[in-house]
Amino acid sequence: MSNDNASSNSANPAAKLWGGRFSEATDAFVERFTASVMFDQRMALEDIRGSLAHAQMLSEVGVLSEDEYGQIADGLKAIAAEIEAGDFPWSVELEDVHMNIEARLTSRIGATGKKLHTGRSRNDQVATDIRLWLRGRIDQIAAELTRLQSGLVELAEREADTIMPGFTHLQSAQPVTFGHHLLAWNEMLTRDYERLMDCRKRVNRSPLGAAALAGTSYPIDRARTAELLGFDAPTENSLDSVSDRDFAIEFCAFASLLLTHLSRASEELVLWTSSQFDFIDLPDRFCTGSSIMPQKKNPDVPELVRGKTGRVNGHLVSLLTLMKSQPLAYNKDNQEDKEPLFDAADTALDCLRAFADMAPALKAKKENMYAAAAKGFSTATDLADYLVRKGVAFRDAHEIVGQSVSFAIEREKDLAELSLEQLQQFSDQIGEDVFDVLTLEGSVAARDHIGGTAPEQVRAACGRAKELIAAR
Amino acid sequence: MSNDNASSNSANPAAKLWGGRFSEATDAFVERFTASVMFDQRMALEDIRGSLAHAQMLSEVGVLSEDEYGQIADGLKAIAAEIEAGDFPWSVELEDVHMNIEARLTSRIGATGKKLHTGRSRNDQVATDIRLWLRGRIDQIAAELTRLQSGLVELAEREADTIMPGFTHLQSAQPVTFGHHLLAWNEMLTRDYERLMDCRKRVNRSPLGAAALAGTSYPIDRARTAELLGFDAPTENSLDSVSDRDFAIEFCAFASLLLTHLSRASEELVLWTSSQFDFIDLPDRFCTGSSIMPQKKNPDVPELVRGKTGRVNGHLVSLLTLMKSQPLAYNKDNQEDKEPLFDAADTALDCLRAFADMAPALKAKKENMYAAAAKGFSTATDLADYLVRKGVAFRDAHEIVGQSVSFAIEREKDLAELSLEQLQQFSDQIGEDVFDVLTLEGSVAARDHIGGTAPEQVRAACGRAKELIAAR
Amino acid sequence: MSNDNASSNSANPAAKLWGGRFSEATDAFVERFTASVMFDQRMALEDIRGSLAHAQMLSEVGVLSEDEYGQIADGLKAIAAEIEAGDFPWSVELEDVHMNIEARLTSRIGATGKKLHTGRSRNDQVATDIRLWLRGRIDQIAAELTRLQSGLVELAEREADTIMPGFTHLQSAQPVTFGHHLLAWNEMLTRDYERLMDCRKRVNRSPLGAAALAGTSYPIDRARTAELLGFDAPTENSLDSVSDRDFAIEFCAFASLLLTHLSRASEELVLWTSSQFDFIDLPDRFCTGSSIMPQKKNPDVPELVRGKTGRVNGHLVSLLTLMKSQPLAYNKDNQEDKEPLFDAADTALDCLRAFADMAPALKAKKENMYAAAAKGFSTATDLADYLVRKGVAFRDAHEIVGQSVSFAIEREKDLAELSLEQLQQFSDQIGEDVFDVLTLEGSVAARDHIGGTAPEQVRAACGRAKELIAAR
Amino acid sequence: MSNDNASSNSANPAAKLWGGRFSEATDAFVERFTASVMFDQRMALEDIRGSLAHAQMLSEVGVLSEDEYGQIADGLKAIAAEIEAGDFPWSVELEDVHMNIEARLTSRIGATGKKLHTGRSRNDQVATDIRLWLRGRIDQIAAELTRLQSGLVELAEREADTIMPGFTHLQSAQPVTFGHHLLAWNEMLTRDYERLMDCRKRVNRSPLGAAALAGTSYPIDRARTAELLGFDAPTENSLDSVSDRDFAIEFCAFASLLLTHLSRASEELVLWTSSQFDFIDLPDRFCTGSSIMPQKKNPDVPELVRGKTGRVNGHLVSLLTLMKSQPLAYNKDNQEDKEPLFDAADTALDCLRAFADMAPALKAKKENMYAAAAKGFSTATDLADYLVRKGVAFRDAHEIVGQSVSFAIEREKDLAELSLEQLQQFSDQIGEDVFDVLTLEGSVAARDHIGGTAPEQVRAACGRAKELIAAR
Repeated sequence: MSNDNASSNSANPAAKLWGGRFSEATDAFVERFTASVMFDQRMALEDIRGSLAHAQMLSEVGVLSEDEYGQIADGLKAIAAEIEAGDFPWSVELEDVHMNIEARLTSRIGATGKKLHTGRSRNDQVATDIRLWLRGRIDQIAAELTRLQSGLVELAEREADTIMPGFTHLQSAQPVTFGHHLLAWNEMLTRDYERLMDCRKRVNRSPLGAAALAGTSYPIDRARTAELLGFDAPTENSLDSVSDRDFAIEFCAFASLLLTHLSRASEELVLWTSSQFDFIDLPDRFCTGSSIMPQKKNPDVPELVRGKTGRVNGHLVSLLTLMKSQPLAYNKDNQEDKEPLFDAADTALDCLRAFADMAPALKAKKENMYAAAAKGFSTATDLADYLVRKGVAFRDAHEIVGQSVSFAIEREKDLAELSLEQLQQFSDQIGEDVFDVLTLEGSVAARDHIGGTAPEQVRAACGRAKELIAAR
Repeated sequence: MSNDNASSNSANPAAKLWGGRFSEATDAFVERFTASVMFDQRMALEDIRGSLAHAQMLSEVGVLSEDEYGQIADGLKAIAAEIEAGDFPWSVELEDVHMNIEARLTSRIGATGKKLHTGRSRNDQVATDIRLWLRGRIDQIAAELTRLQSGLVELAEREADTIMPGFTHLQSAQPVTFGHHLLAWNEMLTRDYERLMDCRKRVNRSPLGAAALAGTSYPIDRARTAELLGFDAPTENSLDSVSDRDFAIEFCAFASLLLTHLSRASEELVLWTSSQFDFIDLPDRFCTGSSIMPQKKNPDVPELVRGKTGRVNGHLVSLLTLMKSQPLAYNKDNQEDKEPLFDAADTALDCLRAFADMAPALKAKKENMYAAAAKGFSTATDLADYLVRKGVAFRDAHEIVGQSVSFAIEREKDLAELSLEQLQQFSDQIGEDVFDVLTLEGSVAARDHIGGTAPEQVRAACGRAKELIAAR
Repeated sequence: MSNDNASSNSANPAAKLWGGRFSEATDAFVERFTASVMFDQRMALEDIRGSLAHAQMLSEVGVLSEDEYGQIADGLKAIAAEIEAGDFPWSVELEDVHMNIEARLTSRIGATGKKLHTGRSRNDQVATDIRLWLRGRIDQIAAELTRLQSGLVELAEREADTIMPGFTHLQSAQPVTFGHHLLAWNEMLTRDYERLMDCRKRVNRSPLGAAALAGTSYPIDRARTAELLGFDAPTENSLDSVSDRDFAIEFCAFASLLLTHLSRASEELVLWTSSQFDFIDLPDRFCTGSSIMPQKKNPDVPELVRGKTGRVNGHLVSLLTLMKSQPLAYNKDNQEDKEPLFDAADTALDCLRAFADMAPALKAKKENMYAAAAKGFSTATDLADYLVRKGVAFRDAHEIVGQSVSFAIEREKDLAELSLEQLQQFSDQIGEDVFDVLTLEGSVAARDHIGGTAPEQVRAACGRAKELIAAR
Repeated sequence: MSNDNASSNSANPAAKLWGGRFSEATDAFVERFTASVMFDQRMALEDIRGSLAHAQMLSEVGVLSEDEYGQIADGLKAIAAEIEAGDFPWSVELEDVHMNIEARLTSRIGATGKKLHTGRSRNDQVATDIRLWLRGRIDQIAAELTRLQSGLVELAEREADTIMPGFTHLQSAQPVTFGHHLLAWNEMLTRDYERLMDCRKRVNRSPLGAAALAGTSYPIDRARTAELLGFDAPTENSLDSVSDRDFAIEFCAFASLLLTHLSRASEELVLWTSSQFDFIDLPDRFCTGSSIMPQKKNPDVPELVRGKTGRVNGHLVSLLTLMKSQPLAYNKDNQEDKEPLFDAADTALDCLRAFADMAPALKAKKENMYAAAAKGFSTATDLADYLVRKGVAFRDAHEIVGQSVSFAIEREKDLAELSLEQLQQFSDQIGEDVFDVLTLEGSVAARDHIGGTAPEQVRAACGRAKELIAAR
């Protein structure tokens, strides 16, 4: 997309429509260098949809006759069919998607085609196209997010009682349930969904009618085109409308956070499928092997998703750098907005799809998880809490537990494997009931408040999560 | 902030509270390298506020007696006063703000101080502190944003009729009004305000009670501490609560967009104060000079704001990189979240303050703006539109205007300076009324629809903008 | 590129070569999601070149017979021809460029094709391919850099006497020559060239023979394949060899700095072609117009180059994020290295080409430059220096000049337009010779040391620059 | 640093030295907002060193008398002592380090102090100071890099025979030696060292004498000041000299790669100290614990280093964003260059120091490493290679190994645990010697070429690494 506005020339569609002032043709390399049709043709159907609304509005306000509108609408619909069938003859000489379609329209329906561009410019046209395209992508992404979250919550419910080690610093800390862990992922995605909807509000405003930069002298009805295109409202300022790319940046910021979350889940999947952890089984269809090493089964999908985080962060930086210090209104720089945005949206959608397919298929290796949780004194905190409840001051309790742990390490046992007598060496407050708190089951059950890892809390949280999803 | 949880040791407050398992002391360099008190002491008052709420809740649920709560509350308030007076003895050996304050409490009130930490961990404590701190900063930023916007809208109203060239590609395109241009800035800031409020919703949830990672076995009331601290609700999942830094990243994304907008306005201020443009006068108090070149008056403030965009973008990248691939739950990496967040918030606030002070003081040099708009055939589009309204097909109209412009260039005149006879050479549709559309006033007045640059539209837009601001 | 190693299966080339361990086929979406052949086919000729060298070495060390080598070499050359003709049947099912070519080889020459992969893995193969590809691109970029610099230095030499305002803070500061300004651009590019050559050293090392990660048990000769492929030496460590992507990141860092420099030059070209500055004429072939605004001539090429800075910075961030925290050795994440690298290299090459074409065609509008330099008291510093040479203390000199400037501003004159009598009001040290230093010519001529703007210095600097370029 | 140039005013050192043209004082908030002395005072000793060289040169060319030079030199040295003692009265009103020191000089030695600034500007002065500061930091970083590498290579030599699993995709792939793995880290650091030295070349050029932007009319000798300050040569162009910040960006790119490498090593240390891997012991002095969980020993130092990667990447982005689109020559934006650069250099130095202290103290848990390598069929590739050497075609060999692995999985044995008879079921080519290749020792010993993991190769590589380090 280059700039401003253009009408078409059916005699020689490749001739530049703004050529009158110029004394030499565009350099051939420059023509390719500055063209955008290689990538912006992706918005062809949105471009046509925008043109249809624009033409309908023009006919309603009397700038086009009903007959002219009919010809234009028929022509555009035929072109849409041509594009969908893969038959459209895209031309780099015609620079961008807008000029290609307009030239095609004029070559199909003749002089009336030249009237389509009345009261608009490529500057507001492209801003409209991108917003329509992005809105569609957002809705697809929202659907995949919901599918992924539904799968996670169902799995969490099934695994509400499955005990695994909870880690801090990748060191075993306290036992948690696998369902609880999965709900942590779900919380991240809930925030992503909220952010996506917040972003959608700002995407869904219509810049159409801002024209080149200042509005137009034709009696256009911007509220009408906004309505026809499903936008919530027209934008407020024409200069801002053609230069604003906030929505693309905000979307990329959403995508960066989403991928950051998926990278964290991916890291965990990679760890958990390693033979050192061996906590889950990832179905073969999400893995690849090695022809040279027959034993290999590589967690390709989570690794690749993790890697794609960089890609999306990069696009965010691209767009922020792009807009930095740009004076108003439209500058050619802005042509660089599309590729990062397209790729960020594609990446978000693909990665969500991969995760939504994969999540319900994760199989917990419950014995391994349990055995790992049972190691590493993960209930030491529970023993301290037990002593505090018996009236021991926290510091004394901590000291007692520390000595017990040292004693157990020397004997290569865990706390729960010590006898009552052994434990009572360290405090006479310790009674038979201590073994309830030293068990993994006792430990998780005790964390029984909103947000805690107790199975009942996990089930309740699953219920709330399902309601939230259902209410979308 | 290091990790997990800690109680205090009044006998030797600098002794590591987790030292029992360790056979050698922390390396002195490592102690400094891993400490955070140099920067996290900034959240001291939020830390105390969180502790007060936690202690009150503990007393309400019966974990602390009323007397214990009273001692703790008095002690913490005394420490707050000490900090505000600058008298608090910060110690790097005590690692972080939390340990410093807790050790101080115990040294002031004795053994009862050791009970404050019941049922929480530094992991949820620091998450609470940052959210409280950031919420306060957001509210200050919102206020400065509003002050800046109010100033811009008032200036826009005063300058609703002031004509200046509108640029695309930094080439004169069509005349606009200065008020319209200022409202374009205001639109950017309106979106920033929306994003800030959306971010605030997600900041304002309480992680307190998540404890180390899994919740706690004490009968805590998370809804109560959330309420006492002004949070909208407790967070839903303990693992997520201690590892989530979305709110910091989302805030930095807000700040990057805000600074991007200010960088664009700054770029324009720098251009407009150059002797080549000379469109505005920037009061001396926002400029600096040169002792060697007595003629210099440099627009330091907008230049510096423009430069600070990089700073904030960098912080956003820092935090995204930080969180990438981190397994749950808390890792020491997260200690690196604070400095970028603090600096992004400070930078946003300072730059808004500078702009809010500066904006109302901008003086338009109206004659220079007008003269610049009058050059460069900026009403050529209006002539084409005029011909279309007379029934000329757009392509013919464009051709006619192109020839007229060439004719005028040769004579070193602008279109409006040609005589009617000269214009009529190119089309007999041109009548005496053509000069109305060729004037700058006619051109701007004709763009008379929502978002257009017509003075009436600008005044209406100012009215709507004021209502939006008043409704905050 | 997925992982590890593979042999081919001529009966069913699409069957996964590592399938024995697997109980279900790869999911169809996953197959597309994890495939790389859509983009890595770009390295097909490098892949073949690497395979030819590998096969030759294998025959030299006796792992392949001469006859086998002959068959393989013929087969690979035929495939190269097929690829160059655009006739190669790329298959997503075969995942990547390596598997596609190997499967094709086996289908062409039969069982011998299966021996090509002896003693190597896709992990070292892809590392070799990228390095070969990048080295080729670096050499093209170096050539375009040199062409651009040659053009700039020639133009600088022609414009060594052309006076223009030198700016700081975009405020007129002191007169400089246009040639001097162009040489500032050249200096930036000289550093870019140095960095590119430094990067090339590190690109040009051969990872071939590192195999999957640990080396191979075959008696390979890594120095020989390095030599055959024009590498300086083999890499030192097999684990590092398959996981290292430093060269890609270092190249992107080079490209970011290059584009940053071009963005600065572009910004100046955009400013200089605005009607407010009007310092240069940019040939029509590097500009585009507007069909709606016949007066427009937009500096598209510099605007677009400026915008592309964001793109390259984004790629650098992508790759840094990608590699952060990756454990050794090869992970699937690394498949994400290629697209950013390819695009960064393409962008650098295209932008250099655009600038190299454009630079020699820039036309200085000397009168406008001179007139702008004559305004704004740009020789005030020279007057102060003059007084210091007459024995006045600097502070007094500064005061005298300040008063003179104020006096001149009131009379709307520049310093050089005041009479001797008027100047002598402020200091009796001022004599007739003052007008020599107040002239623009006197000012630039006085800056007569290495790096200074005096025309003689500019010409000498051009000479040195030409020598540097010639010595490449 | 604000702009251009300044002399000092001993009567009222806080009065702005460029105030003559101004009709109102700088706003108090603006004064703080635009001041840099809070952070640039860090370059105070470099500023003085640069001033000493400048003054000496001025005396040698006759601009200052010997006596004046003597007074200035004595004054500056006294100020340096004051700064080192922490007694210097820094003032925000005096904006920056340069003005603070100059004002102090004049207040100490009187009018002669005003002559120091002859023939220079703050623009070239600050560029000189940063380069001197950075060069010093580079040399410290180089020393720490060398210390870390020496430690790694020594450890690698000691662990040349220690077998551990080599991973791809975090799945056990083939056995390697721990020494080999450590040398992979060393290779990364070798490239970092090369890049640092390449960067140093470009840092070590003297911009002094570029003055405000165009050079100066005084007969300065730039080669002499370059020599006195240990620079390799003066820079070539005055406009470029005051606006160039490449060296800061290139340094940050170095630092980002360095931290990326340390993040990878850190990730591995975190994995290896987890109870799931349990490959190494990290001395207590590099870890911290938890007061609430007595069993915890957290690898704080590697975690924190991993987190600091984000910090440095952020600084790189800051600086790239800062310089994008800046027109020549100096703009106030550039004041933002220092904080990111300072912090990047500090972070690089601290992280290297932490690693250099830590590396020699790593203790391999050899049995655990060996046991992990023995699991997971890591020598399956060796069996296939064995069969190829016996004349079996690779595909058949692969099939045979695949079947053997399946057979062994069913019996819960590893390949080496099968009997000869069991193995011979799958191929009669298998003989008694197969057990040599199935052993871990046999596998690593077989990778016996440059870069391979065979202990002899590791020892040879250590030797080459030591020579490289010794030659620095």
